[in-house]
Amino acid sequence: MITQNIIGFQLSAMSDKHIFATEAESLTKLPEGFSTATLEEVNMAIEKAHNAWRLYRNIPGERKAVFLRLIAKGIEELGEVLVSRIMKETAYQEARVIVERNRTCAQLRMFAEIAASGSWKELVVDPAMPDRTPAPRPELKRKMFPIGPVVVFGASNFPLAYSTAGGDVASALAVGCPVIVKAHDSHLGTNALVSEVIMNAAKETGMPDGVFSSLHGEGFETAKQLILHPRTAAVGFTGSKAGGRALFDLGQQREIPIPVFAEMGSVNPVFLLPGKVADNPKAMANQLAGSMTMSVGQFCTNPGLLVAIKDENTDQLIHELKSQLENVSAATMLNEGIHKSFSQGILKVKEIKGAQVVYETDSSISNKTSPVLATVNAETFLNHHLLHQEIFGPYSLLILCDDHYQMRQVANVLEGQLTATIQAFSTEEEELTALTEILLEKAGRIIYNGVPTGVEVCEAMTHGGPYPASTDQRFTAVGHHAIWRWLRPVTFQNSPPSIWHGIG
Amino acid sequence: MITQNIIGFQLSAMSDKHIFATEAESLTKLPEGFSTATLEEVNMAIEKAHNAWRLYRNIPGERKAVFLRLIAKGIEELGEVLVSRIMKETAYQEARVIVERNRTCAQLRMFAEIAASGSWKELVVDPAMPDRTPAPRPELKRKMFPIGPVVVFGASNFPLAYSTAGGDVASALAVGCPVIVKAHDSHLGTNALVSEVIMNAAKETGMPDGVFSSLHGEGFETAKQLILHPRTAAVGFTGSKAGGRALFDLGQQREIPIPVFAEMGSVNPVFLLPGKVADNPKAMANQLAGSMTMSVGQFCTNPGLLVAIKDENTDQLIHELKSQLENVSAATMLNEGIHKSFSQGILKVKEIKGAQVVYETDSSISNKTSPVLATVNAETFLNHHLLHQEIFGPYSLLILCDDHYQMRQVANVLEGQLTATIQAFSTEEEELTALTEILLEKAGRIIYNGVPTGVEVCEAMTHGGPYPASTDQRFTAVGHHAIWRWLRPVTFQNSPPSIWHGIG
Repeated sequence: MITQNIIGFQLSAMSDKHIFATEAESLTKLPEGFSTATLEEVNMAIEKAHNAWRLYRNIPGERKAVFLRLIAKGIEELGEVLVSRIMKETAYQEARVIVERNRTCAQLRMFAEIAASGSWKELVVDPAMPDRTPAPRPELKRKMFPIGPVVVFGASNFPLAYSTAGGDVASALAVGCPVIVKAHDSHLGTNALVSEVIMNAAKETGMPDGVFSSLHGEGFETAKQLILHPRTAAVGFTGSKAGGRALFDLGQQREIPIPVFAEMGSVNPVFLLPGKVADNPKAMANQLAGSMTMSVGQFCTNPGLLVAIKDENTDQLIHELKSQLENVSAATMLNEGIHKSFSQGILKVKEIKGAQVVYETDSSISNKTSPVLATVNAETFLNHHLLHQEIFGPYSLLILCDDHYQMRQVANVLEGQLTATIQAFSTEEEELTALTEILLEKAGRIIYNGVPTGVEVCEAMTHGGPYPASTDQRFTAVGHHAIWRWLRPVTFQNSPPSIWHGIG
Repeated sequence: MITQNIIGFQLSAMSDKHIFATEAESLTKLPEGFSTATLEEVNMAIEKAHNAWRLYRNIPGERKAVFLRLIAKGIEELGEVLVSRIMKETAYQEARVIVERNRTCAQLRMFAEIAASGSWKELVVDPAMPDRTPAPRPELKRKMFPIGPVVVFGASNFPLAYSTAGGDVASALAVGCPVIVKAHDSHLGTNALVSEVIMNAAKETGMPDGVFSSLHGEGFETAKQLILHPRTAAVGFTGSKAGGRALFDLGQQREIPIPVFAEMGSVNPVFLLPGKVADNPKAMANQLAGSMTMSVGQFCTNPGLLVAIKDENTDQLIHELKSQLENVSAATMLNEGIHKSFSQGILKVKEIKGAQVVYETDSSISNKTSPVLATVNAETFLNHHLLHQEIFGPYSLLILCDDHYQMRQVANVLEGQLTATIQAFSTEEEELTALTEILLEKAGRIIYNGVPTGVEVCEAMTHGGPYPASTDQRFTAVGHHAIWRWLRPVTFQNSPPSIWHGIG
């Protein structure tokens, strides 16, 4: 395993400082010491990326596609070595890891298709009008152009699909932007394995030195150096609101501000209309409990809020939810920090008068977490902003409303969300429409009669949303349209054909 | 003329403070006192816009188109009243004003077409795959959705086309965003006349109260109140780098950051390759002098830098340029501030050793400006950042390079630009290609064998570019694509057809 920083095609370990990954299950330190990047190494990686950009952007899309597909193949060929390392670093089950690996490779191949097709260039031609009065019109042609080196900070909960060869990286590489990855401290080994695959794929397919780099760093300092470098053109981040906002602020305070797309927290409210609850509370509980506890609740689309009307059927739903949660065993979270935040979050909920934890198990088993269900009256919820915020992990708060009016009030006070869900019966269309109108202002994706977990990688996907779901609701982090974060238009006026066809 | 603030369908003058426009030619105060907006009035306008958004976004595109076309008609019907007021407030010639009026109305009708067609919704459908393994795919559909109330700060040099009913306003209204205009202090009367047209058009076509407001304010305070209001969703600005950056910073420092698209300064370099210069220096001088002095050089695409190789033909070009500039009479600038900045800018150039003013006339005629041409060696230019920056007005700096290599060095050190121009002969393709590769990284539009002035309003136009040309190079302020600044995607998962067709 490569423990140095990977700077283009070069391995580099200028510093004596090393950082180590932790086995999530046992909390023991894993043996490999990864060299942290010095400022000089950060600068080298970005300068190389900048130079690579000038070559890489002119490499035909077909060849970029070959590069991306070879990365996918390389990841698959790592086989058991990669799977077991991810399991160690995340405590994820094997099946979960394999699903994520398949998704990552499918995503790389999807972006390879986009690269090969060149559709992202979005050519627009306005022909000349030499006879127009009062003045002739020149010929104007527009195409999209890669923005430059992109710095990517991976997600703790997606060591593959939103990390080193994940959606941010694949979408940037597909459209001609070199990438510098800052390895996530929690999966340094996974990053090393995948980075080596990318470096080798770049070499083998003749991509320029610097098209990809991967650096290790301690704390905020390396992130800061990466974002403040004048050659850095854009940033992709997936993680907490505090982390994302800090990086966003750095990007905006530069002499030349740059786009920092951070996908951050979300509580993903699920509105349960009474007709639907009455229909089959048991099936509903089954579906919700599954969404809430999958991967120990460690999804950014985890349903953190359930909103229902106080009645007998909702009582029955709570009863059924509790039964479902009893079947879920305690499990290890991704890392100590996440585990600690979760426990502290639950404690804070308990401090609020009127918020009631209705399901939890003995949480004394260090490093393991069981699901937690709480309930609260809508009025208390409306008055406690703390309850509106994400607790990352297997936790949901069920809000009990007096009536539809109060349900809408709850919808109206919510912060920006990645998703909002409405479960309704076909006869509840009026309320469904009213809630949709409110939630449209709040969320990037609205789900009907489903659950928020499960993010399809497709053209119609929006994984983003009003702040704090993301720092710029005009973009998505998942799916085909993820590329637009890294592209800008350039117009050619009366361009010689050789320039228009030969460049960009 | 309405001198109150226009808040939806209501005229409001809560404050006793009034501001006055100035006749640009005589520098005398014009008689109308315009009420400045209080914080309460700012809040009212934005709350009304927010409420209007909830109605306006669901009004069919065809009806929005009728609204926009009625604004265009109303502006035309103002006839001489509007033209003479603009001439007073700007010192522009009548012909210049009429061209701008025609452009403004054509722009409103173009955005009306976009509204009517609904093409901006960019519908994407990924059908359900109920039999997919390992898990079925839900149906996913995506459409674009208006971001919310947009605050617009108009341009000093485009009292119509980039102000009260200009491109920012028309593009926002076309896609369902209400607008609050902060009237430009230099054309308060023009703003009042146009705002009244918009208010009446909104009433007559049944648009919601609050779809448009127009406020007067003194200094930075009103701007700050408008941008910091939590209901404000986005900002459009056209003006100076200092002004744009201040508004951008306000928008990014909010608890919930919002997009602030500022179109700011640009020096619009023109690279003159030696073959082309040799071909016909007189014709070239004629074309360049025209671009440089049109509307007293008060265009954001004014050619502020000319880059050529030191040789006899370039000497001839300078000679011809001087002759051309002699034919241009002194003319009044838009306002005292712009006139003062221009004079100070020229003084600063003169302080730089090696920079030489080669053409100017007696500048003692107060409030009038004649064109100024300066030259400098490339080496001096490379070492003086001050020379890289915009001096708004009829000024160009001709940079004399030793060779092609130095010409590329000049290209490489430039800041972000709205435009970059290359004039080259057909045999100079190698150099043309090399320069294009550099300028692609710098500019939103690249022009061949033309001049930067003249911004077509069309689909292929990019009027924007790397900072400081704009605060976000991924967007354009002119042309069809200007709408994307005000739109965000929303995905509907397994949506009932009534919701998908009925909402948004």
